[in-house]
Amino acid sequence: MKFQFLFCIPFLVSLGSSSRIFEPTWASLDSRPLPEWFDKAKIEIFIHWGLFSVPSLNSEWFWSYWRSRQTQEISDYIEKNFPPNFTYQEFAKDFTAEFFNATQWANLFAKSGAKYVVLTSKHHEGFTLWPSKYSFSWNAKDIGPHRDIIDELGTAVRQANLTFGLYHSLYEWFHPIYLSDRANNFTTQDFAKAKALPELYELVEQYKPSILWSDGDWEANYTYWNSTEFLAWLYNESPVGDEVVVNDRWGADIPCNHGDFYTCTDRYDPGVLQAHKWENAMTIDKKSWGFRRNAVLDDYLTANELITTLARTVSCGGNLLVNVGPTKDGVINPIYEERLTQLGDWLSINGEAIYETSPWTAQNDSYNGNIWYTYANNNVYALVLEWPSDDTVTLQSSRQIFEASANTSVVLLGNEDTKLEWSLTTSQVQIKLPSKAIVKNPTAWVLKIISG
Amino acid sequence: MKFQFLFCIPFLVSLGSSSRIFEPTWASLDSRPLPEWFDKAKIEIFIHWGLFSVPSLNSEWFWSYWRSRQTQEISDYIEKNFPPNFTYQEFAKDFTAEFFNATQWANLFAKSGAKYVVLTSKHHEGFTLWPSKYSFSWNAKDIGPHRDIIDELGTAVRQANLTFGLYHSLYEWFHPIYLSDRANNFTTQDFAKAKALPELYELVEQYKPSILWSDGDWEANYTYWNSTEFLAWLYNESPVGDEVVVNDRWGADIPCNHGDFYTCTDRYDPGVLQAHKWENAMTIDKKSWGFRRNAVLDDYLTANELITTLARTVSCGGNLLVNVGPTKDGVINPIYEERLTQLGDWLSINGEAIYETSPWTAQNDSYNGNIWYTYANNNVYALVLEWPSDDTVTLQSSRQIFEASANTSVVLLGNEDTKLEWSLTTSQVQIKLPSKAIVKNPTAWVLKIISG
Amino acid sequence: MKFQFLFCIPFLVSLGSSSRIFEPTWASLDSRPLPEWFDKAKIEIFIHWGLFSVPSLNSEWFWSYWRSRQTQEISDYIEKNFPPNFTYQEFAKDFTAEFFNATQWANLFAKSGAKYVVLTSKHHEGFTLWPSKYSFSWNAKDIGPHRDIIDELGTAVRQANLTFGLYHSLYEWFHPIYLSDRANNFTTQDFAKAKALPELYELVEQYKPSILWSDGDWEANYTYWNSTEFLAWLYNESPVGDEVVVNDRWGADIPCNHGDFYTCTDRYDPGVLQAHKWENAMTIDKKSWGFRRNAVLDDYLTANELITTLARTVSCGGNLLVNVGPTKDGVINPIYEERLTQLGDWLSINGEAIYETSPWTAQNDSYNGNIWYTYANNNVYALVLEWPSDDTVTLQSSRQIFEASANTSVVLLGNEDTKLEWSLTTSQVQIKLPSKAIVKNPTAWVLKIISG
Amino acid sequence: MKFQFLFCIPFLVSLGSSSRIFEPTWASLDSRPLPEWFDKAKIEIFIHWGLFSVPSLNSEWFWSYWRSRQTQEISDYIEKNFPPNFTYQEFAKDFTAEFFNATQWANLFAKSGAKYVVLTSKHHEGFTLWPSKYSFSWNAKDIGPHRDIIDELGTAVRQANLTFGLYHSLYEWFHPIYLSDRANNFTTQDFAKAKALPELYELVEQYKPSILWSDGDWEANYTYWNSTEFLAWLYNESPVGDEVVVNDRWGADIPCNHGDFYTCTDRYDPGVLQAHKWENAMTIDKKSWGFRRNAVLDDYLTANELITTLARTVSCGGNLLVNVGPTKDGVINPIYEERLTQLGDWLSINGEAIYETSPWTAQNDSYNGNIWYTYANNNVYALVLEWPSDDTVTLQSSRQIFEASANTSVVLLGNEDTKLEWSLTTSQVQIKLPSKAIVKNPTAWVLKIISG
Repeated sequence: MKFQFLFCIPFLVSLGSSSRIFEPTWASLDSRPLPEWFDKAKIEIFIHWGLFSVPSLNSEWFWSYWRSRQTQEISDYIEKNFPPNFTYQEFAKDFTAEFFNATQWANLFAKSGAKYVVLTSKHHEGFTLWPSKYSFSWNAKDIGPHRDIIDELGTAVRQANLTFGLYHSLYEWFHPIYLSDRANNFTTQDFAKAKALPELYELVEQYKPSILWSDGDWEANYTYWNSTEFLAWLYNESPVGDEVVVNDRWGADIPCNHGDFYTCTDRYDPGVLQAHKWENAMTIDKKSWGFRRNAVLDDYLTANELITTLARTVSCGGNLLVNVGPTKDGVINPIYEERLTQLGDWLSINGEAIYETSPWTAQNDSYNGNIWYTYANNNVYALVLEWPSDDTVTLQSSRQIFEASANTSVVLLGNEDTKLEWSLTTSQVQIKLPSKAIVKNPTAWVLKIISG
Repeated sequence: MKFQFLFCIPFLVSLGSSSRIFEPTWASLDSRPLPEWFDKAKIEIFIHWGLFSVPSLNSEWFWSYWRSRQTQEISDYIEKNFPPNFTYQEFAKDFTAEFFNATQWANLFAKSGAKYVVLTSKHHEGFTLWPSKYSFSWNAKDIGPHRDIIDELGTAVRQANLTFGLYHSLYEWFHPIYLSDRANNFTTQDFAKAKALPELYELVEQYKPSILWSDGDWEANYTYWNSTEFLAWLYNESPVGDEVVVNDRWGADIPCNHGDFYTCTDRYDPGVLQAHKWENAMTIDKKSWGFRRNAVLDDYLTANELITTLARTVSCGGNLLVNVGPTKDGVINPIYEERLTQLGDWLSINGEAIYETSPWTAQNDSYNGNIWYTYANNNVYALVLEWPSDDTVTLQSSRQIFEASANTSVVLLGNEDTKLEWSLTTSQVQIKLPSKAIVKNPTAWVLKIISG
Repeated sequence: MKFQFLFCIPFLVSLGSSSRIFEPTWASLDSRPLPEWFDKAKIEIFIHWGLFSVPSLNSEWFWSYWRSRQTQEISDYIEKNFPPNFTYQEFAKDFTAEFFNATQWANLFAKSGAKYVVLTSKHHEGFTLWPSKYSFSWNAKDIGPHRDIIDELGTAVRQANLTFGLYHSLYEWFHPIYLSDRANNFTTQDFAKAKALPELYELVEQYKPSILWSDGDWEANYTYWNSTEFLAWLYNESPVGDEVVVNDRWGADIPCNHGDFYTCTDRYDPGVLQAHKWENAMTIDKKSWGFRRNAVLDDYLTANELITTLARTVSCGGNLLVNVGPTKDGVINPIYEERLTQLGDWLSINGEAIYETSPWTAQNDSYNGNIWYTYANNNVYALVLEWPSDDTVTLQSSRQIFEASANTSVVLLGNEDTKLEWSLTTSQVQIKLPSKAIVKNPTAWVLKIISG
Repeated sequence: MKFQFLFCIPFLVSLGSSSRIFEPTWASLDSRPLPEWFDKAKIEIFIHWGLFSVPSLNSEWFWSYWRSRQTQEISDYIEKNFPPNFTYQEFAKDFTAEFFNATQWANLFAKSGAKYVVLTSKHHEGFTLWPSKYSFSWNAKDIGPHRDIIDELGTAVRQANLTFGLYHSLYEWFHPIYLSDRANNFTTQDFAKAKALPELYELVEQYKPSILWSDGDWEANYTYWNSTEFLAWLYNESPVGDEVVVNDRWGADIPCNHGDFYTCTDRYDPGVLQAHKWENAMTIDKKSWGFRRNAVLDDYLTANELITTLARTVSCGGNLLVNVGPTKDGVINPIYEERLTQLGDWLSINGEAIYETSPWTAQNDSYNGNIWYTYANNNVYALVLEWPSDDTVTLQSSRQIFEASANTSVVLLGNEDTKLEWSLTTSQVQIKLPSKAIVKNPTAWVLKIISG
């Protein structure tokens, strides 16, 4: 007898091209099924690149913290290294991107095991990485790189068989028209109509992103941003209506409430199963999304920490967004390359426990907190984040599968030829691992439980 | 008996605050009397300053000639001195203005004898000298000088008791929204509505210019630019409705046809009396409005040439616009200072033949082409541009005044104590000048003819 | 019975302050015993920092390859990113060193387990990292960092209880006086006397380096460089006469023949015991000594490769020079930090098999090529570079020790509490390792063999 | 009877190639006759160009005043426009010289009427305008212009038939070797021997200057500088031994005492006849030798002032050195061009009263202080600096010539066809000028007195 899992599908997924016409209301927009590809993909590379990559200090919020908070580290740096009247805009000329090779980036992302890539088309600073009509002389084509970054990266990413998407900040910290709307308590909508929305339409029509990762929404309501009208257009009429996936940052109170997937807050990592598709947007540099020149080794996640986060996220129904910050000259630092490569190496052995999986009935093992579950093709995967010193793994939440049939088998991914010995105890099951000396995998191991 | 001149007033002048409400039609706008101050002022300083002052080569059309015409001088300069992908926008950081002292400029302009000063608030390049809401991160406050140039200069100019005005280019060579409107044969009006007009309203409300010197109009009709609506607002509702004076560059076919004063073409200098108030917009550097680092002495007008142009212009009812081009660091080259000082020195003796004068019945003497006439307070002024080698001036067009009364007297401005001997010949009058050894004036002399 | 090792001391070591007076001949200089500290220290951090860190491309030979070899990668980079007449010297202004924190560097070096640190005081480019009297306006105090790099680093390194030394290039690729001497077949000695030697004396007197790592000697004989005179002064009269150690690059044919220690060629790694103290000068970035911005992960040695090289080098009597290339802004890239930290972590467990050890009778085990030996305090250390899949190490070269006494014991460093089981086979000895699951050490393990 | 002038030749002039061998003593060196060309030439253009032309503020002493005197104008400028650690050396990259056209300069100098041109090969800052072997990486070939300025200018100047010479500063404000010699009270001679003298020999051999204009000598005795040895070599052995002329700045107490011509102090202008050939080294910008970007019109000499200085200088036996300061981009400002052109225009009419003249028995007329005398070919020239308001010149010192013969004639240069009426009064002679209306000359007039 096959054991029947209590399998939950916590969210709608699209089963092909939609012919529905959405209304510009959240109720209607929320009724759209999630395009299937997104839930299967699981891992995103997020790229924070912009003028903040020039000072490359503190974080991508450099400008805001300098001017609004007078963050000491930033003030000191500016005072020590620049003339008194220096402005943030003058960093633009040093955003050289001379080593930016989109194909090299895309190949690295593919090697990491990520399935889609999202780039900051424009961060809160307002500098656009594409030659926007709405940002003349303040974009990466007119000044700095002299290139259409989005076009180059989009092409390369798609050639590497990855899905391409764009991040876009609705607001801009210091745009005078935005500041004026804000001063009017958003009773005027000049910035939204003259800048934010035209940019979004331009981006979608020109670059056809499959993900639109909105941000910078929080100070105004979605009605200020015309978000529902835009999304209705995006779903109904835009060239990416079928496959596009959007996040939830479309106005105050919208995050965690509306959108194709929820990001809620940065580094959202609930640790329990979520009712709606969500994403854990996190960074390899624990302190920043943009590159920091003075980051030290301790600031970067280890491979173990990264894979642990992946296991927990996927187990709870989330996708993992892994952020990297390239340098102003277009280089992805070898430390990032190493982490991505370590992730990719791990996935090359253990990917079947991640991609196209669903959450299982249990997420975190109730006996061993370092073990998380996923499910696919009627198999349960136990992701073991720490090798037991006695080479024996003890599981509780999945004991029932073993109990149900003596034919239940279990293998270690990467050593599938060997069925592992297991034995039931009163309330757990114990599984004997092979000698660690023969396991190539340096960090985190997956037990595939095949019900008998 | 006093001689009665046939005195023509060739154009309407305002006789105080107008209470009329203008319609947005040329017929209505044209009915507005010219504010009186403008005709009296006669001499304007025009300042061309912008990013073109950084390369300071060829002319203020540097960018356009580089990209559209591949002008050899510019291509060579760029190729020799910059990296291959260099863009015009990257000049912005070098627009330092470190020596810009608005008071020093204003004092020099006052010393030159000019009565009003007009600054290029934005040239065809699109870089604004004020922190415009519509040109975020591409203006002189955000990048380069880090200053509000218009505010500083306006304040200083007014403190020097000069009238302040602004030049503004409607079009921008390379603005993508403008290019898109043009590609649509101006059936779309996006640029005019999102950029050109908002800027004009912002400029007027914020800086209250008494002159609005429009330019860059020619590729589109005035209906594209909404010019008549803007001007009706300017005359009726704006804070400068009473005193403001505008030129004629408000759309294709408008120059020389509509506007408070006509500029027609650059360096317009008809040599005959005009029916409408006009301005001769000319430059001290014969080849450029913007500063040229490699200009040589021969490129600059001599004091004689400058005063000659002034005489001819005022005689024919025009105002003279004298253009100077400051350097990127904010300096008005000593050669400009010398010309302006020479002009001012001449005017300090001869100003009464210029300011607040009207054209006389004759302009250019019919016997001696180097003599031009003006008229004021019942006196006729003969502006003598060349000292006769026999110290005797021969006049024909004004012979009748001498003929009319033996009491007609004539003096040389600067030597008013001495009445000069005159005698009638068959068809002329001859006036004996004092010895040149006692005349301080180095260039151009004025005979004041006082009818008996 | 204790086993008596055939222990060789392959080179003289100094036993305290020397009172000898050396003659300026190689025979006399070679008679100086090696200061004891050097052989004990084993591990050096070498730092390549200079103007080549600004382009940070290809290698520290950037200038020479650009001008002399027209290396494609360099020519392309220059052509694409700089004006046509750009010179190497113009990189100086961008050598900012703004994040250079000598204490942070020194702490990292200490953490890596290195015992001495050597800095490029001047590379072949000629730019000095100290304000040399002989390099006015072409040094790191006058231009670029505006700091005395040597003073700052020397102080910090000594505070971290590490020994400080200096690299110095005798020749300079493009110095016109050197080129002139060379054109004269070195019959003139102008450069040596006016530049190279004064610098060396200045360096020694001012910064008192304990290592002098000479380079750039090869085109001329030692007589051109006055090397023997300089070394006699260094040993006899300089403030560092007792402790200083010099390498062997003092003129054509000198390397591998004279000097306190031999470096022979870059990355010298003979694999067999050497008769004279030597150093393996190698780099973590396999392709360059200076930092390369476009280096990728594969270009860096793995921790395994680094520790393998260390084992082989120390086993054969060498010291290991581990080179790092900081960035122009003074940062040691996290990938370097990771390797150094991995090395330090390994040494914190296994250091007793490295520091203050001597070569043993055997170097490389004759049965298992992945095992190397060192010797100290009557113990033999077997450095095992690969964990055996059956958890059993087989040794041949050291079988005799086990054979000699049944009391011979063997432990794994880091797990010293547990004596490991061993058994003799016909011609080897087999040692049973503990389960890999309990060993923290990720890469390379040391068996300490204590003769019974 | 011809009147016999008491004609003094106040200094020796060479009458062809000298075969004498000079000793390195002042007595011997002083015995050398002045090469004839120099006294005839009368007018020199002096060019101050160097790194000080980059800040172009205050004067060419910018660096010294900034660091040693903390001159407010300079400190303020630096503080406001540069990062805190900015150094003078970092100006080098901005010494672009992009518009430097040696032929254009030479043609202007020829047009000014000057007969020789002297360039600052190296000012006190130490930056050399030629690729000196003794200033590697700190010269105009290696950094900044990327050109051999001396070679280009020397070639062009000679092609324009002008004599070419070089200025050279012996000392350097901040050269550490010089500072060390000075700290030793010049008992060490390291700087002189390693830097100053090798440069001088290099300059002479490489560029064959006909004038060597030494400076920066004053802190040390000529024995420190080895001046007499150098001059003996220069006169006896150098390639310019026959024609070379040197000034007097060769050590403390040497100026005004030894040398081919005396410069004594800057702007030396004694107003009385000198016993030794001398030069009045003066500037068109009254406040600086180097270009000042913020100089205003009043800072520049007028044409009148310049010609007045010329008249007084030549009258008293001096040559006039007229200094110009080009901009960092290689432009001679039009205000300089105007003054030089005005000088040239004046000389084109009045040159025979200047070139190849000698002082006359009287210099300044004892009745009219605005009149100075020169002498050539048995004629006396009276240089009249102010036009008399009654068109009558009164002379006293030259009355005797008129008294001596009724055939004495006098003409105005430029109007030589007309012999002027003269008449004797009790102690003067009165000369009636033509009408000023027919004289083209705008400033200063010359009366040529031809004895009867």
